[in-house]
Amino acid sequence: MMRRFALPLLAMMAAMPAAAQTAPQAAQTATADAPLFAAEVTRSKAFVAQMMAEGISVPTPKDPGGGFTHEQHKRNYRAIYEAGQLFAVTGDPVYSGFVRNLLVAYADLYPTLGLHPAQANQQPGKLFWQNLNDAVWLVYAIQGYEQVRDTLSQADRRHIDDDLFRNAARFMSVDAVATFDRIHNHATWSTAGVGMTGYVLGDKDMVDRALRGSKRDGRAGFLRQLDELFSPDGYYAEGPYYQRYALQPFVVFADAIARNDPEQKIFERRDGVLLKAINTGIQLTYGGRFFPFNDAIKDKSLNTEELYQGVAIGYANSRDPALLSIAAYQDRVAFSEAGRAVARDLAAGLAKPFAFRSMLLRDGPKGDQGAVAVLRHGNSEDGLALVAKNSSQGMGHGHFDKLSWQLYNHGDEIVTDYGAARFLNIEAKQGGRYLPENESWAKQSVAHNVLVVDGKSHFDGDAERADRFAPTQLHFAAGEDFSVSTGRIDTAYAGVSMTRTLALVAVPGLQEPVAVDLMRVRADAPHRYDLPLHYNGHIIRQGSALQSHVAQRPVLGDAAGYQHIWVDAEGPVAPEKAFLTWMTDNRFYTWRWVPAAGSTLILGEIGANDPEFNLRREPVLIQRVDGARDLLFAGVLEGHGRHDSSTEQTVASDSQIRSIKSSSGDGVEAVLIETLAGVRVAIAVADDRDPAKPHRITVGGERLDWNGPAARIILPGTTK
Amino acid sequence: MMRRFALPLLAMMAAMPAAAQTAPQAAQTATADAPLFAAEVTRSKAFVAQMMAEGISVPTPKDPGGGFTHEQHKRNYRAIYEAGQLFAVTGDPVYSGFVRNLLVAYADLYPTLGLHPAQANQQPGKLFWQNLNDAVWLVYAIQGYEQVRDTLSQADRRHIDDDLFRNAARFMSVDAVATFDRIHNHATWSTAGVGMTGYVLGDKDMVDRALRGSKRDGRAGFLRQLDELFSPDGYYAEGPYYQRYALQPFVVFADAIARNDPEQKIFERRDGVLLKAINTGIQLTYGGRFFPFNDAIKDKSLNTEELYQGVAIGYANSRDPALLSIAAYQDRVAFSEAGRAVARDLAAGLAKPFAFRSMLLRDGPKGDQGAVAVLRHGNSEDGLALVAKNSSQGMGHGHFDKLSWQLYNHGDEIVTDYGAARFLNIEAKQGGRYLPENESWAKQSVAHNVLVVDGKSHFDGDAERADRFAPTQLHFAAGEDFSVSTGRIDTAYAGVSMTRTLALVAVPGLQEPVAVDLMRVRADAPHRYDLPLHYNGHIIRQGSALQSHVAQRPVLGDAAGYQHIWVDAEGPVAPEKAFLTWMTDNRFYTWRWVPAAGSTLILGEIGANDPEFNLRREPVLIQRVDGARDLLFAGVLEGHGRHDSSTEQTVASDSQIRSIKSSSGDGVEAVLIETLAGVRVAIAVADDRDPAKPHRITVGGERLDWNGPAARIILPGTTK
Repeated sequence: MMRRFALPLLAMMAAMPAAAQTAPQAAQTATADAPLFAAEVTRSKAFVAQMMAEGISVPTPKDPGGGFTHEQHKRNYRAIYEAGQLFAVTGDPVYSGFVRNLLVAYADLYPTLGLHPAQANQQPGKLFWQNLNDAVWLVYAIQGYEQVRDTLSQADRRHIDDDLFRNAARFMSVDAVATFDRIHNHATWSTAGVGMTGYVLGDKDMVDRALRGSKRDGRAGFLRQLDELFSPDGYYAEGPYYQRYALQPFVVFADAIARNDPEQKIFERRDGVLLKAINTGIQLTYGGRFFPFNDAIKDKSLNTEELYQGVAIGYANSRDPALLSIAAYQDRVAFSEAGRAVARDLAAGLAKPFAFRSMLLRDGPKGDQGAVAVLRHGNSEDGLALVAKNSSQGMGHGHFDKLSWQLYNHGDEIVTDYGAARFLNIEAKQGGRYLPENESWAKQSVAHNVLVVDGKSHFDGDAERADRFAPTQLHFAAGEDFSVSTGRIDTAYAGVSMTRTLALVAVPGLQEPVAVDLMRVRADAPHRYDLPLHYNGHIIRQGSALQSHVAQRPVLGDAAGYQHIWVDAEGPVAPEKAFLTWMTDNRFYTWRWVPAAGSTLILGEIGANDPEFNLRREPVLIQRVDGARDLLFAGVLEGHGRHDSSTEQTVASDSQIRSIKSSSGDGVEAVLIETLAGVRVAIAVADDRDPAKPHRITVGGERLDWNGPAARIILPGTTK
Repeated sequence: MMRRFALPLLAMMAAMPAAAQTAPQAAQTATADAPLFAAEVTRSKAFVAQMMAEGISVPTPKDPGGGFTHEQHKRNYRAIYEAGQLFAVTGDPVYSGFVRNLLVAYADLYPTLGLHPAQANQQPGKLFWQNLNDAVWLVYAIQGYEQVRDTLSQADRRHIDDDLFRNAARFMSVDAVATFDRIHNHATWSTAGVGMTGYVLGDKDMVDRALRGSKRDGRAGFLRQLDELFSPDGYYAEGPYYQRYALQPFVVFADAIARNDPEQKIFERRDGVLLKAINTGIQLTYGGRFFPFNDAIKDKSLNTEELYQGVAIGYANSRDPALLSIAAYQDRVAFSEAGRAVARDLAAGLAKPFAFRSMLLRDGPKGDQGAVAVLRHGNSEDGLALVAKNSSQGMGHGHFDKLSWQLYNHGDEIVTDYGAARFLNIEAKQGGRYLPENESWAKQSVAHNVLVVDGKSHFDGDAERADRFAPTQLHFAAGEDFSVSTGRIDTAYAGVSMTRTLALVAVPGLQEPVAVDLMRVRADAPHRYDLPLHYNGHIIRQGSALQSHVAQRPVLGDAAGYQHIWVDAEGPVAPEKAFLTWMTDNRFYTWRWVPAAGSTLILGEIGANDPEFNLRREPVLIQRVDGARDLLFAGVLEGHGRHDSSTEQTVASDSQIRSIKSSSGDGVEAVLIETLAGVRVAIAVADDRDPAKPHRITVGGERLDWNGPAARIILPGTTK
């Protein structure tokens, strides 16, 4: 980043007397401030200098996401915000003047605007193709205006107050009241923009509408959103990607509320749920990237404005030193007083490591809408992390992926979630909006690591029905050798109950814990069951020879996502040959399972029926069983060995597990793992949640006795 | 690396008194030496301590590459070498004793060995499945032995001298004389092993055979290899990957020759060709990885033992401070006295930047077997680099890829070469050997960015014929705004002459130079022409709608590599719609071409007829023309714009070029590029190599006049 900005800055300095004059002052600021904040000032000066050099450009709205007017209005609100902050930091009138000129141009334009010409089916905006972007514009612009308003002439102030901000606030809270009064992150941006505008203009009515909804009855508005959209554990219903996105208006508006209405005690509301939300958002990352649940863009990391603001405002209100180490990872801070304090304390060496750990995050306002279970072994950079998604649908951006899971190791995705089918702000791809394949593939059940019944997606792909039912988190426990989560849902398919246990299990002699997957299905009628595993890697060894479609590649189905899967090979698999080994980033992984009687294995690749090349080409394996009712799917994922390309050494490129066996009884089930070295470890699970209740099952000829919902049992080893 | 070794080391120290006693000494050494060498000592002590802890294991040879005995014998020769060096550094008898014990075990085993049971069709070895590995074993082992031989009892020395090393040298130079006397890198390892053994045992006969071949007539042997295998520019005939590989025995044996036969002046031979070879090997990398010509494993980087040795011995004999910055990049040095000196001088701040630059590397002993042209703009980490491969076939590891090219930018492959189809040392993949797909795909012409005539590979895939003919490098020039290479070959297909000009061309207003490709073919009969472009990225925009095979995917052909290409879409393309935009690593690239009359575009993906999933799935586009004779294929590759996922800003995701036009006349051709901004730049090329000769051509209605074989001509801009 620095390098990219450094050159333009120098260019600007040479070109622009105005900027040149402020250069010494810049240097001062830079030396007076801690490095990270000084860098923000430098970066911001370069950007604003560039914007100044280009001259005021406030074009009549025309283009959708990614287009010129869209990007220009985004650059403008950033310029308004940053120039405002620069004025606060430097006191240089060149910045307040620039903010004034931009806002006057907007004040001239705004009253002339109707709805955006490129409006899509979403709520339309005026400056942008969707209302949401207008709300974001307002949140940024009002913060910039706040810094300079006192310096303006009365005439300017009235022009900007009335023609721009009152108009914009009215558009948000009156014309677009439908959005404004939703319990949804779009509405959070709207209410934040309107509420902060209210504080700046001293308009109590605006503030009240923002806090309590357009009817001021508290059934809508920011406070209701705060109560409804986060769980008691600070989990946001739409998932990590939108948790990040939603965070910014929540923390920024909360910060304004704390400053203007301290008696609201906004950061203490619901046992400090906003601070929990910041922390939880960070816990929901691996290697700095958010777990890509639901409509998530995969390369979204902690390096986003939302998290700079989240860390800064979170730290200002919690003084949690672990947040400082996140700022260190980001190598950025928010360009605000709060960000300045983060940079200062980080430079003062006050940071403590942020402890990524196994945790259960309950979903739903009351915490009773299922949960997300994160099982970790080691750190977030190269440790092992398993994520079990037993949470609610999460509204419009939710996927039909009940009881899905993901696995990460050594910094790589191993068992993957496709995330969203979207190229954000890339105009050639549907104007940067969600692609048709987001509906036809990304949201569908078969696109996830879930059980698919009769080729239909969960809730038959009906989002409204899906929103009414959530899974139940039956059990969660985390330890050094054994971490486990069990979830259940009975409503995804009529007459079908799915119970899934996912665990990280240490097996003596293996280099790292294995992931165990026990998916038990009970049904009142026979069905076709498909259990896909979306993996990331290049196939190294197939357990059994399949019928390959080498000369012409068929498509797996014609609906519910199946139409996007090419079939490479398929066929029955013998128990001892039920494994697939692949290589990811020079490490080896073997998925091994207990094949059900009459089951077949399908090896496929995504990309069929995709004439626009909108989908990534990724591999998938599917276990298929026809005409079954009650069934236990048991699988084990094992990371083993390594290929070192510089020394050309390869170790353990083949699985170190000899066999796995499974069995299920009345409310109990188990899997027995035996390694090549003869070590035997069993995982046993019971429905009953009583931790003291004794259970018994026989698996692979061994009788297991244990107490409670789940246990890891080491059996006497066999001799080789 | 350090982290991976640090823990075992501490574990060893605790576990092993022997190692523990040497710990203080280790600390001393570490402090006495420069950091990089101290790290080698630490790393080596950890490895050797581990090997000691495991006890002597010299198994009877059984497994192919990647298998246990294969890897164990590799670990053993590394242990012999490193323990020998550790003894030299520390004087600790625990190390000389370990070398002795290992070598005695080998001396006991060796006389009992026949040829390796897993021998493939290559020349078999005794310790390994191929003779080559035995030679490598000998090169390492003799260096370790050299360090400790004087410390051994006479009995031990005789046992090891006679039963192990004389036997091994005899096996190499007598039993396997066919390999020994080849002019090939395998023979270089053989001769190096035998020659160095000769020096250590004081056996002049061995040395002579090594230097002058088994017949001592100089028609084979190391000196002949040195004269035949490198071009006057230090280019190795088999390409960068094998240049790296071949380098080690050349420099290591040369170093021994310089020490034992200084009068040979080995490093001055052929105007210092060995030192040139080290430098050239480094120049043939991008981002630290070797250009993957021919049978190349793509992830092979400068971080290999060969290059640690190459840098160390090169620096010892040239004192070129630029080599120190390569050592800094490697963050490693050879574990030898020469490596110690590199670490010392690097720590002393003597390093100078290594200048990666545009250069022409002639091929062939006399430099008349074509050439490799490297065109660079910027550095090797994120600069633009175009490689034109107009070199000879390069023996058995050569591909049928005459006049092929590759492009790199911002650290990514943009226009790619598949390299080898092989998973080195991964037993599940054909024992780690070359895969069948290396012949059926990787070597075939259609797997490269070359012109394919009538669906057959160059020289009809006949390696022996291919070795007899090389292209001609017609022109090369490198400058800031215009770098260009022209090559020709008339022998790849009977009656077909191909002349290809590749250039990096600065176009005013575009963010970086564009790559221009002019492929002119002349034939005495009509043919089918296929011009593939193997690109790395996700398709963002297709210029024209094609017929998509969305529901069933056909295969392009049945031989010469075509059987491995799935066809996604195909169809005719109108001139103004002849472009494809893809995204690589959040940057955009557009390939634009002038479609020949009646030509079609084929969009495909590799992976058909690949039941073992041996191939990577990669995209390719192919321009196809049927029934044509003389034709000019003109194309331009343009890098533009960027998507920043953290700020969600996207700029210039669409091409900034409005059109390209081309024309060809009698011995001249040209392409005219016009940008959206109306800037017009033409590239004109003439067959005649006379730099003063005037030429003229008309393209896009513009008359161009220039002198010499190639010119960049800025035309008056058009108004938008």
